[in-house]
Amino acid sequence: MDFFNVVSVEEGREMLMENFGGYDLKTEHVDLEHSINRVLGEDIYSTINVPEFDRSTVDGYAIKVEDSHGANQSIPSIINILGEVMMGEAIDSSIKSGESFYVPTGGMIPEGADGVVMVENVEKMDSSTLLIYKPVSQGENINYKGDDIKKGELILEKGRKITTGVIGVLAALGISKVCVYCRPRFYIISTGDEIIGIEEELTLGKIRDINSYTLGSLVHNVGGIVVGRKIVKDSYELLQNEVKKAIDISDIVLLSGGSSVGTRDYTGKVINSFDGKGVLFHGLAIKPGKPTIVGEAGGKLICGLPGHPVSSIIVFKALIEYYLGKKMGTTEITPRVKAIMDHNFRSDPGKETYQMIELRQEGGNFYGTPSFGKSGMISLLSESQGYIVIGSHEEGIYKGEEREVYLLQ
Amino acid sequence: MDFFNVVSVEEGREMLMENFGGYDLKTEHVDLEHSINRVLGEDIYSTINVPEFDRSTVDGYAIKVEDSHGANQSIPSIINILGEVMMGEAIDSSIKSGESFYVPTGGMIPEGADGVVMVENVEKMDSSTLLIYKPVSQGENINYKGDDIKKGELILEKGRKITTGVIGVLAALGISKVCVYCRPRFYIISTGDEIIGIEEELTLGKIRDINSYTLGSLVHNVGGIVVGRKIVKDSYELLQNEVKKAIDISDIVLLSGGSSVGTRDYTGKVINSFDGKGVLFHGLAIKPGKPTIVGEAGGKLICGLPGHPVSSIIVFKALIEYYLGKKMGTTEITPRVKAIMDHNFRSDPGKETYQMIELRQEGGNFYGTPSFGKSGMISLLSESQGYIVIGSHEEGIYKGEEREVYLLQ
Repeated sequence: MDFFNVVSVEEGREMLMENFGGYDLKTEHVDLEHSINRVLGEDIYSTINVPEFDRSTVDGYAIKVEDSHGANQSIPSIINILGEVMMGEAIDSSIKSGESFYVPTGGMIPEGADGVVMVENVEKMDSSTLLIYKPVSQGENINYKGDDIKKGELILEKGRKITTGVIGVLAALGISKVCVYCRPRFYIISTGDEIIGIEEELTLGKIRDINSYTLGSLVHNVGGIVVGRKIVKDSYELLQNEVKKAIDISDIVLLSGGSSVGTRDYTGKVINSFDGKGVLFHGLAIKPGKPTIVGEAGGKLICGLPGHPVSSIIVFKALIEYYLGKKMGTTEITPRVKAIMDHNFRSDPGKETYQMIELRQEGGNFYGTPSFGKSGMISLLSESQGYIVIGSHEEGIYKGEEREVYLLQ
Repeated sequence: MDFFNVVSVEEGREMLMENFGGYDLKTEHVDLEHSINRVLGEDIYSTINVPEFDRSTVDGYAIKVEDSHGANQSIPSIINILGEVMMGEAIDSSIKSGESFYVPTGGMIPEGADGVVMVENVEKMDSSTLLIYKPVSQGENINYKGDDIKKGELILEKGRKITTGVIGVLAALGISKVCVYCRPRFYIISTGDEIIGIEEELTLGKIRDINSYTLGSLVHNVGGIVVGRKIVKDSYELLQNEVKKAIDISDIVLLSGGSSVGTRDYTGKVINSFDGKGVLFHGLAIKPGKPTIVGEAGGKLICGLPGHPVSSIIVFKALIEYYLGKKMGTTEITPRVKAIMDHNFRSDPGKETYQMIELRQEGGNFYGTPSFGKSGMISLLSESQGYIVIGSHEEGIYKGEEREVYLLQ
């Protein structure tokens, strides 16, 4: 049973979460140096205090601060130097009033000391006598044990995208193998009698397979992997056969194409031919991207995207990227810039409109021009650096209005 | 000869370009499907017209538009149907006045036709007779040959970062192997007697090597590769020896650490011990990151970064990322958000200040809180999603001010 029930983007997303939100996302352990841009698959609690010992934040002398009280250029405090703390080594001596130890930046504070006077503010009279010219206050120039991170503290939450900063924290905690979500596996099928591989000779009437490459790069950027890619002619049997293979080895099957009437007709039939819930919706109130079809077959998410390159990118971002982000609980901020629109642009009320935008920077501001061109045009892809989302309740954008432009990476 | 000449960020960047701007960046060819996020190493001219033939943008009948003039619901135009254009196939028949061909979306327009009437506006009286209920204008529903991209046109410029959109254009042009800049090779050396590998047991006084991981991830994100990484104790000979190895196999050597006096002293000496221009500057008017040292040794760029994780990240972004971007001529927009600052923050005039920012989103707006903490603190890394740059002429930021926050990825 194939039906054409158009849903809003919001409804489409909810249906994805309802139907595919329950599946368990597997996790795996990867080397820290290869974890950048992955997503944390578990909460990280600190197993240590950072720092693990009281550290000096300057090169100076660890003292009892009361020994420096009242010291100034004319009347320095005079105390003993017991020795030097070596970088990277523990110090088991302690100091009493009238005593000091030299401590380099990052070096350990000896027991008994409660402040560090910087080298700039002291003078060595001889190897064992120190003149202090400036008082220090309690705790000055000391980074106390656990000041930075406390043992047992929840420091990074599951779903956090692993950025440079996160890698720094994981390294500090000594986590050399990181628990991350497995990369979702995608199988990309381009359909249509007119589609040929990009290495094939272009004969009249044919067009090259663009979508499996653009979709492949989107998959890469959301942290997924492409486990298979195939061009399939307009034939129910061929498509059914390919989807069968895809379901076996992937988590999400992307079909693109179906601009021809034939394909439009049997994509739904193919989805319904497997065990599962079949077609969930056919038609999305989005522009461009209306002929989107989503279903469940053999336990896998099957998403039929429009054939036009821009439309399929938009629907991928609106549905698949949203779904994966929600599923992993990622808190990442979508890269964007605020830009002043330099043209009026009318949208279709009732549809969420994704409009490609050409950006230019002038004086510290960004300006955005809607890329006017049919969604089938390839040149849109090279001219636009991002897109804006115009809500279904809006009538368009006005010249001079400032809008968030999401960067297309 | 080691000297301490502090330069501004602007001057430091100029010195990098002057001294390392002339080296030839090598290019290589990679498969299109693995080219995402690389940088184009050559200008791309189109070798084809896109589309290569006049295409229909709808399902409909290709006609001579004059045949539809005056047609309406009551008085349709009546013309002959000669046949059907098959998807993906060339059509060598042509039409004359009073004739039509069925053409699917994307199908080729037969010669002689100058408009397509959509299926919604026609009726088939029998297999060879068409009733047209609505007139079409010249060129309506046709995408003409070369409309999108013209043969010979410069479509993508050298230095363009390969995004999803760029991949789409390359696929359309049939470019399966893309000329990209080779990944710059980095060798990362962490120095300091206190530094241990992250898998080693943490004994009192030691700290784990964080910088080689954070810097490694920054290298990855700028499209580089780490060809070697090593922890070196505070010793002139050991460091000299390691830098020698690094120069042989990498393009850029990053040293990090040297928070101890010893290392600070001999990093410059090591750089000066090789053939080349030696130390170019030692000291950068940036906060944090002052103890930065840059030089040329054996024809390679050597950059000594501060030991504190945040400082070394900042200097990498301010100098190395800038340098590589400039060198490749990339035109990429740095991902950022505009955020309203919710605290006053005082900076040091005379220094460019990079302040880490904690972002939160509230009703469409971003708010930014300066992460107050010493640059040595690790937790800064997990709390901050980005940073702002406060110019050397500024005194700080004011509560309520809107600032660009560059996202730390």
